[in-house]
Amino acid sequence: MSKFVYDFIEGNKDLKDLLGGKGANLAEMTRLGLPVPPGFTITTDACRAYLATGTAPAGMFAQVEEHLREMEAQLDKRLGDPRDPLLLSVRSGGKFSMPGMMETILDVGLTDTSVVGLAAQSGDERFAWDSYRRLIQMFGKTVCDVPGEAFEHALDAAKVAAGVAADTGLGTAELQHLVEEYKKVFHAHTGRDFPQAPHEQLYLAIESVFRSWNSERAMLYRRQERIPHELGTAVNVMAMVFGNLGAGSGTGVAFTRDPATGQRGVYGDYLENAQGEDVVAGIRNAVPLQDLQDIDPANFAELMSTMDRLEHHYRDLCDIEFTIERGKLWMLQTRVGKRTAAAAFVIATQLVDEGIITLDEALHRVTGAQLGQLMFPAFDPAATPQPLITGVAASPGAAVGRVVFDSAQAVAADDHVILVRRETNPDDLPGMIAAQGILTSHGGKTSHAAVVARGMGKPCVCGADTLDIDARAGTVTVDGTVIRDGDVVSIDGTTGRVYLGAVPVRPSPVVRHFEGDPQVSGDALVAAVDRLLAHADGIRRLGVHANADTAPDAERARRFGAAGIGLCRTEHMFLGDRRELVERLILAADDAERTAALDALLPLQRADFVEILEAMDGLPVTIRLLDPPLHEFLPALEDLTARVARAEALGDDPGRDRLLLDAVRRIHESNPMLGLRGVRLGLVIPGLFAMQVRAIAEAAAIRVRAGADPRPEIMVPLVGAVQELEAVRHEAEALLATIDGVPPIRIGTMIEVPRAALTAGEIAQSAEFFSFGTNDLTQMGWGFSRDDVEGSFFGRYRELGIFAVSPFETIDAKGIGRLVRIAVEEGRAARPELTVGVCGEHGGDPESVRFFHTAGLDYVSCSPYRIPIARLEAGRAAAHRTAATSDSR
Amino acid sequence: MSKFVYDFIEGNKDLKDLLGGKGANLAEMTRLGLPVPPGFTITTDACRAYLATGTAPAGMFAQVEEHLREMEAQLDKRLGDPRDPLLLSVRSGGKFSMPGMMETILDVGLTDTSVVGLAAQSGDERFAWDSYRRLIQMFGKTVCDVPGEAFEHALDAAKVAAGVAADTGLGTAELQHLVEEYKKVFHAHTGRDFPQAPHEQLYLAIESVFRSWNSERAMLYRRQERIPHELGTAVNVMAMVFGNLGAGSGTGVAFTRDPATGQRGVYGDYLENAQGEDVVAGIRNAVPLQDLQDIDPANFAELMSTMDRLEHHYRDLCDIEFTIERGKLWMLQTRVGKRTAAAAFVIATQLVDEGIITLDEALHRVTGAQLGQLMFPAFDPAATPQPLITGVAASPGAAVGRVVFDSAQAVAADDHVILVRRETNPDDLPGMIAAQGILTSHGGKTSHAAVVARGMGKPCVCGADTLDIDARAGTVTVDGTVIRDGDVVSIDGTTGRVYLGAVPVRPSPVVRHFEGDPQVSGDALVAAVDRLLAHADGIRRLGVHANADTAPDAERARRFGAAGIGLCRTEHMFLGDRRELVERLILAADDAERTAALDALLPLQRADFVEILEAMDGLPVTIRLLDPPLHEFLPALEDLTARVARAEALGDDPGRDRLLLDAVRRIHESNPMLGLRGVRLGLVIPGLFAMQVRAIAEAAAIRVRAGADPRPEIMVPLVGAVQELEAVRHEAEALLATIDGVPPIRIGTMIEVPRAALTAGEIAQSAEFFSFGTNDLTQMGWGFSRDDVEGSFFGRYRELGIFAVSPFETIDAKGIGRLVRIAVEEGRAARPELTVGVCGEHGGDPESVRFFHTAGLDYVSCSPYRIPIARLEAGRAAAHRTAATSDSR
Repeated sequence: MSKFVYDFIEGNKDLKDLLGGKGANLAEMTRLGLPVPPGFTITTDACRAYLATGTAPAGMFAQVEEHLREMEAQLDKRLGDPRDPLLLSVRSGGKFSMPGMMETILDVGLTDTSVVGLAAQSGDERFAWDSYRRLIQMFGKTVCDVPGEAFEHALDAAKVAAGVAADTGLGTAELQHLVEEYKKVFHAHTGRDFPQAPHEQLYLAIESVFRSWNSERAMLYRRQERIPHELGTAVNVMAMVFGNLGAGSGTGVAFTRDPATGQRGVYGDYLENAQGEDVVAGIRNAVPLQDLQDIDPANFAELMSTMDRLEHHYRDLCDIEFTIERGKLWMLQTRVGKRTAAAAFVIATQLVDEGIITLDEALHRVTGAQLGQLMFPAFDPAATPQPLITGVAASPGAAVGRVVFDSAQAVAADDHVILVRRETNPDDLPGMIAAQGILTSHGGKTSHAAVVARGMGKPCVCGADTLDIDARAGTVTVDGTVIRDGDVVSIDGTTGRVYLGAVPVRPSPVVRHFEGDPQVSGDALVAAVDRLLAHADGIRRLGVHANADTAPDAERARRFGAAGIGLCRTEHMFLGDRRELVERLILAADDAERTAALDALLPLQRADFVEILEAMDGLPVTIRLLDPPLHEFLPALEDLTARVARAEALGDDPGRDRLLLDAVRRIHESNPMLGLRGVRLGLVIPGLFAMQVRAIAEAAAIRVRAGADPRPEIMVPLVGAVQELEAVRHEAEALLATIDGVPPIRIGTMIEVPRAALTAGEIAQSAEFFSFGTNDLTQMGWGFSRDDVEGSFFGRYRELGIFAVSPFETIDAKGIGRLVRIAVEEGRAARPELTVGVCGEHGGDPESVRFFHTAGLDYVSCSPYRIPIARLEAGRAAAHRTAATSDSR
Repeated sequence: MSKFVYDFIEGNKDLKDLLGGKGANLAEMTRLGLPVPPGFTITTDACRAYLATGTAPAGMFAQVEEHLREMEAQLDKRLGDPRDPLLLSVRSGGKFSMPGMMETILDVGLTDTSVVGLAAQSGDERFAWDSYRRLIQMFGKTVCDVPGEAFEHALDAAKVAAGVAADTGLGTAELQHLVEEYKKVFHAHTGRDFPQAPHEQLYLAIESVFRSWNSERAMLYRRQERIPHELGTAVNVMAMVFGNLGAGSGTGVAFTRDPATGQRGVYGDYLENAQGEDVVAGIRNAVPLQDLQDIDPANFAELMSTMDRLEHHYRDLCDIEFTIERGKLWMLQTRVGKRTAAAAFVIATQLVDEGIITLDEALHRVTGAQLGQLMFPAFDPAATPQPLITGVAASPGAAVGRVVFDSAQAVAADDHVILVRRETNPDDLPGMIAAQGILTSHGGKTSHAAVVARGMGKPCVCGADTLDIDARAGTVTVDGTVIRDGDVVSIDGTTGRVYLGAVPVRPSPVVRHFEGDPQVSGDALVAAVDRLLAHADGIRRLGVHANADTAPDAERARRFGAAGIGLCRTEHMFLGDRRELVERLILAADDAERTAALDALLPLQRADFVEILEAMDGLPVTIRLLDPPLHEFLPALEDLTARVARAEALGDDPGRDRLLLDAVRRIHESNPMLGLRGVRLGLVIPGLFAMQVRAIAEAAAIRVRAGADPRPEIMVPLVGAVQELEAVRHEAEALLATIDGVPPIRIGTMIEVPRAALTAGEIAQSAEFFSFGTNDLTQMGWGFSRDDVEGSFFGRYRELGIFAVSPFETIDAKGIGRLVRIAVEEGRAARPELTVGVCGEHGGDPESVRFFHTAGLDYVSCSPYRIPIARLEAGRAAAHRTAATSDSR
């Protein structure tokens, strides 16, 4: 017979899988000898068995009875005793906290007879009948699905009859009458009487807690929080204690340190003559925990010593609930406490200083996501008004500025602006650089605006689809509110909220520190972040490089701790005022025209590379040859079509638009993502890659002549077959051999086409390094166009539980990750010295960084603002994990 | 020391890898005791070593000398002997025949002194000097890269000086003078004298044959013919024999059966007093081989017995070259002869009847590609004029008809028409069905026109890009020629040729037979095809199903031998006059409108399924739920944009176009291939899949009530994660349970997203069958949009040798095939009874069918016209292969 029930004295805090978090911690406190009311926990195994079959597993209730008898003996009270009844609380408690998601039933054991005993024992008749009516109400709703309104109506009627406004105005007689009314409600909705057998009450309560695991709201919460559905909940049955038995009673919650800032010293609230739910309901105002020192010095001292003991025992911030019943302190719950991102860093280093944990353990107490939160400016919470609308929180941080509707306006502005667009494209880049933040009405977290903004570390709210943008009229309309060109808005990319007017912003002290601001060096948070990052750097195995296309980006990346550039995109060097040259290249009618366009681009590309190599002197700079499809450099087909049709309808000459339209039609592709781009362009357009290779080589030679240490590498995009890479390598090596003074330049490839991963052993024969382009690998491996799918059906997919998080945000370890593992393994087998990195956006995602550590990569590369996050997560992945440490998720 | 040189008596026909085809067969004939001039073969190993290092491997020339001494002893002649010189031919010969691609040098050994000996021995001074001048010319061009024109100029000058028109007019003295001129040309271009050392001539000739392996034209040929570049060529050195020494001499080529029809009886040409190259040059007319019986009865008899012996020895049609030198027959070459597709089938069954090979071996003598050729109507070769243009040979067969420019015209026509379009789309389907053939100016082998035409078995020429189609004017212009609406053209989809006017067509007797025409049952070819297909059916392990969407297609598929429908696409049931309902579905503003549209579609879908299930009664019909993106059912964005812009510019109301444009914009996707389609549609559009599942179930129930045996299966497209399939299965099973009288319906999935293959073990837990969609798997695995890439860069990729054949035509076994193997293995591991098939276009491609056999699939599914091909190839894959059988490629 399986063991389904554990007395509190039998469990311990490491049995969370079996007993849930609450049960395991109650057991732990009981074992520590702390004053926990007697009780027992029914395991998650029992819950899973119940949910699978619809009935409790054989023997479970017998075990419950056995443990109940022990409790009765210990307390010298009996369940249902008409003179001195034992009352029970029945509470859910899964492995992971799901606050408010599942059911609790209090005062189990009250019946028409035992209520009399409770009244006698407590000496408070009103309290006894109020408890009884609460049980019927809670039991009816939870166990028997009686609609809550039915009880509310009866309560309201009782108050009207008594001529009182609040529940507390009802006296004993009225409550006795209300109990009768409640029993009628119960019967009317269930067709049976409220159960007068206390054991039946207990059994039904336990089963209803099991069932509450699969309630709609619990399932939704688990999907959001990425908690597996198959875990199930445990059920804790505990003797009731009462904080509402007069002046010597009360209840409170407390933290062992301040969970908001991490400051040392206990922190909490106490409410005299009240139950726990009264604190939650906020019926009366609680007092600071310190006041208990005056109210009840003995219990305060006992509580302080208990909390100190718990913190040392759990080796972390603890969060507790307690009740004082007529002068006796009872511990009702403890757990490792939730805290803000700032508090997490501060507390982790405090615990190191106090000798409680090691630095390795401290790394497991913080997360990259928390560090990310700390790196963005934030609105002052005290001064935040009601948001106008909420869109997709696409790139975190707070920004305030005047509304502008196009890139040129943004560039021309000499004050802070917010660029507002339906959606952005590469042409908006100058405006995005100039603006404080970006707001769009279309696209999701992987839209162009979102990706570029995150790359820049700039706040962005996307897909605010109730915005009606009329760029010509210079207005945005939201539910009747009209915002005009020049009006000030504030956007919060961390929450997706958009505010009218200017909300005060506080810059991130962490970023100020990275940027070299000495004023923040004394800040406790900054010191804590610095210390944990330094430790992470000391132990991590993954290198951290930056995705950076310009010298300023490269400089910032160095300040943020990058050990090189893992992805320098050359397409951004083809935009702006160089676009005209690119159009010439695309429209070239013959070799001469094409060569002329390439010749004109060469010195510009070379100058770009000189600057970047200078900024990254002594560190590798991996330069990707041109990747995007050509149509991205020309106006949109739809715009040109409309322009030409309009001109022709009016009898005008469409002029250059006609020429461009022909070119765009010629190169138009149904699925440009899967078309002529990357290495394919290089193999089809004579001289294109050669121009880029020459620019890189000549830039390196210039730097060498200047006495510097340039370390460029050439990366070929979109390779699917080794023959493609061989063809490019052949041409590049021949060209490099003709240029004087060039340092050694390694040639490698992106692994971003599934076939490249599947044939990595072959490709490694021609590649000195691999860099996973996990964005494209995800697009092709799942068949998801990032431009299309996030907005269209990812929401529905998350609802359906098909995935908990977008695979563009966190790498899909099972599917796409398998391609990564295949390629690492087979690439290294073919060429043991192969360098393997990743330069997709996943390179800066905390969970993905840990995956890449496990997969054995050499480095991750990410946007400059994510570098500290990646450093921290790489350190966490490598840090020794003590068994007792509860990891931050 | 490696052995680099094999005397002919040392080799045999199975050493083709080492000795090349020609060398191995010369050795085989020598071992059989046939009259082969003495000689030896230098191995492909030596060639590879030479090509890798640029010099002959150590010891090779010493071995050549040793074998040469043996030849000299055997013939009692010496190389360079001034009285009776041994002369040598030096010929290339790789593993696979590459006719005319590499070099041959004849008469090696002639020098200023040995030419005199040749004259004396042959008694023909003119012959000797003509041979010498030919050697200088051939050697100069081949070994020393002297331009051919330089020799031509000298020859022309000699003819002018002699006052003769033809080479044959030059006498001995003039040829002696020409030799001097040739030597001057040689010196002028090489800076050295023509080598007078015969051994040096031989060494240089051997090396130049090695080098010719890597000539441009040889490399191009190998790419086209898919011959690996690393094989290298062998070199055959043989004593010269001369067919041009007067009346008792001659030369000929012969086949042991008619290579065009397969008819029994030798077949060939003979030319008296001539060398082999004269036959090729066509200077004089050859006579039928039979005439040799009168000219030289003894040698004719010897030749006949030799050919009979060779055919029995090789157990196949042989092709030979021979020379008679002054009454002595010499065999100069033999090989298994090339033959037409028809001859291949006829000869294979003849050889079975003659007891020479088994039926299993016979299957290896024919190919699916050959059977494919036999299934299309063809133009009468005797009556074919010059083509007007040549486009892409997109779907084989011959068709003649009047030019029409749109689908409606084609449908309305009551005679044969050719549909001429820039490109086609699903709306052209009725016109394509009505037309005899399709001609487009855009798109390649995987364009819509090509894919649909192949599916229908209808001739199609695509991408004829010099066609200037003006549908409004009703004209097509090609290089100044104007074809008008109603003019007759003939198109040959097998060759891509387009002819003006009507060319006579012969229907395929094989297809007539499948279609039940009794008139062709006596045809030798039809009997041979039938017999080999029956044998293939008896031994194959792969089932063959059909891709068919309509009852007529299903009926045809059954006649062609399909054992079920592997892919019934439901999207075709959403076109034509049902499009209006689909527009309502897409434009639906609320649930009620959407439900109304679905309710209207239900009976139409149900009726479709009833018909198909009837046509395939008793066999499985795998029905794929709706797959394509919704925009395919609406007008094109570009068209609507232009229409609306035009209307607005003119102040008109764009009306419904405005509404459609809004909808198209709303659902517009940058990469629809990777967007909202397949299972994603089903999960996002409430009721869509449910309507289809209901239609299938109700159709099956109707058939069951009619006493039939319907076997529908439901296939879910584009699944990437098991959760998607589970969601659909959950809904479908709940729905099926509500409909009475439904037979068991299996639910399975396409495996067409790479992630599905990578997580096949999970997916198999919810799938009763897998069907590989290798088109999409190729698109996503390579990152190739089939609509875009074939026309844009596949040509260049083939040139570069990145692939020899489009991966959309033959499955890429290494990359995409790996996904297939992973999915088969892990799917079966998770569910041993899993059925696994393929329904991409590869299911009908011969080489791919063999891959699917090896990968362990249960069946392939292909368009009806490819079913016999797949049956044959599945049989070939299973057929026992005798070691001695040379397989058809």
